[in-house]
Amino acid sequence: MALKCDVQYGKGSSGFKLTKVGVSKVRKPVLIGRPGFTSPLNSVVNCTIDIFVDLPATQRGSHLSRNVEVLREVAEESVKQPVSGLENMAVDMVKKLLVKHEYAVNAYVNITGEYFKANKTPSGRDTLEYYTIHAGAHGVRDGGIRKTIGVDACGMTACPCAQETVGELLNVSEPGFPMMSHNQRNICSIIMTTGVDCDIEADDLINLAEKAVSTPTFELLKREDEGRVVINAHTNTCFVEDVVRNGLTLVTEKYTNLPDDVEVLVKSDSEESIHKHNAYAERYATLGELREELAQKIKMQ
Amino acid sequence: MALKCDVQYGKGSSGFKLTKVGVSKVRKPVLIGRPGFTSPLNSVVNCTIDIFVDLPATQRGSHLSRNVEVLREVAEESVKQPVSGLENMAVDMVKKLLVKHEYAVNAYVNITGEYFKANKTPSGRDTLEYYTIHAGAHGVRDGGIRKTIGVDACGMTACPCAQETVGELLNVSEPGFPMMSHNQRNICSIIMTTGVDCDIEADDLINLAEKAVSTPTFELLKREDEGRVVINAHTNTCFVEDVVRNGLTLVTEKYTNLPDDVEVLVKSDSEESIHKHNAYAERYATLGELREELAQKIKMQ
Amino acid sequence: MALKCDVQYGKGSSGFKLTKVGVSKVRKPVLIGRPGFTSPLNSVVNCTIDIFVDLPATQRGSHLSRNVEVLREVAEESVKQPVSGLENMAVDMVKKLLVKHEYAVNAYVNITGEYFKANKTPSGRDTLEYYTIHAGAHGVRDGGIRKTIGVDACGMTACPCAQETVGELLNVSEPGFPMMSHNQRNICSIIMTTGVDCDIEADDLINLAEKAVSTPTFELLKREDEGRVVINAHTNTCFVEDVVRNGLTLVTEKYTNLPDDVEVLVKSDSEESIHKHNAYAERYATLGELREELAQKIKMQ
Amino acid sequence: MALKCDVQYGKGSSGFKLTKVGVSKVRKPVLIGRPGFTSPLNSVVNCTIDIFVDLPATQRGSHLSRNVEVLREVAEESVKQPVSGLENMAVDMVKKLLVKHEYAVNAYVNITGEYFKANKTPSGRDTLEYYTIHAGAHGVRDGGIRKTIGVDACGMTACPCAQETVGELLNVSEPGFPMMSHNQRNICSIIMTTGVDCDIEADDLINLAEKAVSTPTFELLKREDEGRVVINAHTNTCFVEDVVRNGLTLVTEKYTNLPDDVEVLVKSDSEESIHKHNAYAERYATLGELREELAQKIKMQ
Repeated sequence: MALKCDVQYGKGSSGFKLTKVGVSKVRKPVLIGRPGFTSPLNSVVNCTIDIFVDLPATQRGSHLSRNVEVLREVAEESVKQPVSGLENMAVDMVKKLLVKHEYAVNAYVNITGEYFKANKTPSGRDTLEYYTIHAGAHGVRDGGIRKTIGVDACGMTACPCAQETVGELLNVSEPGFPMMSHNQRNICSIIMTTGVDCDIEADDLINLAEKAVSTPTFELLKREDEGRVVINAHTNTCFVEDVVRNGLTLVTEKYTNLPDDVEVLVKSDSEESIHKHNAYAERYATLGELREELAQKIKMQ
Repeated sequence: MALKCDVQYGKGSSGFKLTKVGVSKVRKPVLIGRPGFTSPLNSVVNCTIDIFVDLPATQRGSHLSRNVEVLREVAEESVKQPVSGLENMAVDMVKKLLVKHEYAVNAYVNITGEYFKANKTPSGRDTLEYYTIHAGAHGVRDGGIRKTIGVDACGMTACPCAQETVGELLNVSEPGFPMMSHNQRNICSIIMTTGVDCDIEADDLINLAEKAVSTPTFELLKREDEGRVVINAHTNTCFVEDVVRNGLTLVTEKYTNLPDDVEVLVKSDSEESIHKHNAYAERYATLGELREELAQKIKMQ
Repeated sequence: MALKCDVQYGKGSSGFKLTKVGVSKVRKPVLIGRPGFTSPLNSVVNCTIDIFVDLPATQRGSHLSRNVEVLREVAEESVKQPVSGLENMAVDMVKKLLVKHEYAVNAYVNITGEYFKANKTPSGRDTLEYYTIHAGAHGVRDGGIRKTIGVDACGMTACPCAQETVGELLNVSEPGFPMMSHNQRNICSIIMTTGVDCDIEADDLINLAEKAVSTPTFELLKREDEGRVVINAHTNTCFVEDVVRNGLTLVTEKYTNLPDDVEVLVKSDSEESIHKHNAYAERYATLGELREELAQKIKMQ
Repeated sequence: MALKCDVQYGKGSSGFKLTKVGVSKVRKPVLIGRPGFTSPLNSVVNCTIDIFVDLPATQRGSHLSRNVEVLREVAEESVKQPVSGLENMAVDMVKKLLVKHEYAVNAYVNITGEYFKANKTPSGRDTLEYYTIHAGAHGVRDGGIRKTIGVDACGMTACPCAQETVGELLNVSEPGFPMMSHNQRNICSIIMTTGVDCDIEADDLINLAEKAVSTPTFELLKREDEGRVVINAHTNTCFVEDVVRNGLTLVTEKYTNLPDDVEVLVKSDSEESIHKHNAYAERYATLGELREELAQKIKMQ
């Protein structure tokens, strides 16, 4: 029986076009095959995915099941041929969406993935740490496709201001080692949007984000490692503002080959131990703007 | 003892300015005093608040405690003189932020509030329903301030397409009453951004959002009311696309006096009963664009 | 038209009784009128409520709308006559539930409330802090009713072990002031279940929970206050185990007049700054057991 | 350098023992190797894990890092030798915990896993569906170990009562096909706790839970499948009470070989489309009690 849904193909009665129509919060595991993904434990990424296209005023309904079909094709292919990155999978999906939704001008894919990456504690002990991956793509029919790859890395910040204040309150100057301060979880995010030809490894962004905070954190710390982490944090105190600027500096220094139009978003969300609320900072800019600000600063020195 | 934090006032070493610096997820109850707010139960709104300013490259740290001071002042004043709306409170805060942060060019306040509003079931029974309020403001020094007010209303949609398909599968045409379909919670959001002089009541936006879905829902339904809600939903089936377009039509019809540059965001998030994921649609446009599309449609008829 | 739902009154076909049937996640604001609740800002508590009764094998369905009716009655009465505590409201509801559900032997009410309480920073500055209230009641037909009142208080802990380790690693002994350590948000919960005649103030439990951690935290801290909070935390380091034992000690010392059968649950959930996961401890015991353990300890000293 | 933390080994000052001390919300991927797990996409399960032991009054601190070490050993072994089930992994962990924490009498492991399972739509189309796995174990030194395995399955329920009411309101009797009703997502959970020798497949529990609701749901439904799902749901209407009793019946019928002391928890959480709150039912019982109630019912017929 060939069923068609007349109501869906009918003209929209309102005359308004829609910016985004589709499915959201679809859960799907994807097999990743970039170099270094050697174990199933860090090559399968559980994803939550939003898939949208726009809709002209002349059509009542979008075909939402096509969005899930596109996702299934791409995710199933990943079992035979692991994808080279979630952002590249998103680009693939955007291309297929623009074919399957012949009425759409824009296609959007947003992916949030749960990712585990091997790391080492200060003393060299192996750990497996948890990160969130943000990936996506936006394509315009007869226009270009932009893709996004980013990470949230949970690290630690110790506050430079409280450290200074404590010294003043205790009337201690130059104790020869860092003073106590408040410290806490800090989620540093680095998210980059580029053309389809740029290659950015999520693992590299994790490394940069973990350098931007006072210290990365670890699932397993024996006594000495725990002490080292605390000392490192208090030797390398930073505000949320510092975390973002550290991230911007690291990104600008690392990606010298990327074009000026690459968009960079760096965020720092500090779950303040002295408050019930968070401290937060962010910068959104193009690589070109960041390079210009850096040049300006060097000129002024 | 007059303590100052030299590190905070120091120059940022990186040369980068920051887009947003401040506090997030601050919880605070606020007393609202618009007409119709007659009981403490719907005049106290528990809010979660983000407060940011930007930061020039020449300064290392923003003074985050000033953000909380501004919030406290405004929230405490609300006890003596209830605020006329969360978006107006946000405008007040933005003005104070630009005074207290003399280095900032931009100030941002985002508020999410938990709001209860009296309603009546189809048979006239009283209920108290829960809504989420979105409010905010963005001000630019020596520029203007824009404010945002919006709502999330949880209602119900029944699917027109499944209803048609079921009739075909059962070979039933014109049963004289609506066929079964799948139906579910649908969160319809209407969020509007205007100049400071525009007045939009959150209660009106709730009414529009509840008209945009198949039917509003209720905390208390006795048997007959429950049946009426089900019949209403199946008589008034709509896709997520329809919900958004209904919302756009209702907004355009209601706010004829508002200027063309008012920004409108209408969203529909359907927690599909037949899927584990959601269906979703949204439109972001200015009132001017919406008016033009409507005129275009009328011309074409 | 008098509608009845035959299917609901029908006998359950399976022969199984059910432990709990009802509604969950109902949102409702409630007006609290205990002494000290002087402002609408801390006398309206937004609640999320579960209401259940059991169901005999002989009946197919429970009358869920009665649960919401009971809640409405009690919440609306609170506007005229503020309730003396959420746990007492829960007791009221349980009594009404056993009347309205004539087939039920057990009735259960669980309430989670969002509560704001005035506090003072170390230097005496006023703040309004956010807490979660847990309240509830369980009644048995022709048996007794037990009620529950408890709080989650977000404070701060500094780790005694890392503090010691850091001193060893740096080869510093007796610096004359506390060494740095890692510190973080710690949610301390104290939850007590008693007979209906016992009176426990949620505000008292908040005070005990905030004494059990290294230091309470505050929404607004100017420089010196921030330094004092940090110094207090590092002078009063504690493990999650210590937090729970501190809470048990404080409860046992304060509630000397309560009977032995009062149930006490103390929890400490530490959002570790050095890990991405939490450290956690809890004790569940009767006051009688706690008193016995305390006596045992004193005897052994 | 051999560091030890004297404070941790010190005697607790309060005299109270603790029920549970450990780590919570540890994230870890685990490789599962039960028959039918043929693809990395459904054999890697991302887990969130709580690991606790109790603590005698005589010791101040538990050694939390040992909990993570035990988890790492077991998870890493899974790469070489996939575990036969998360509940069996929990049993392994409990055994190791009681060795590593020589002072503990009780050890607890609770695991929540994200699991994808292949399924087929009514017309036979392949889908990959998302489920939550609950697994765990509790061991007592010189006593036994009990293990827990369970699932949350998101399906759909259509309401039998509203269906009847609608017919009465419309004055339609016997239309020859199911009337419309309200329908919604229903999370059915079946969780069983047994001795270590019992074998229960999570996949079987998913199948039972999906039989207990009006219909399972699917990520991908083309038109006819969507219609079939809607018709199936309205042909097989059920209350939350029915879902739980269906689950109890299915469990009792399937697990005739399991001993009487097996504990069974069946829950149904219905995200009501006509309300903003949920309807909920649960039964907790031993298999022995369920068998007795079933025998009682048969005797009475």
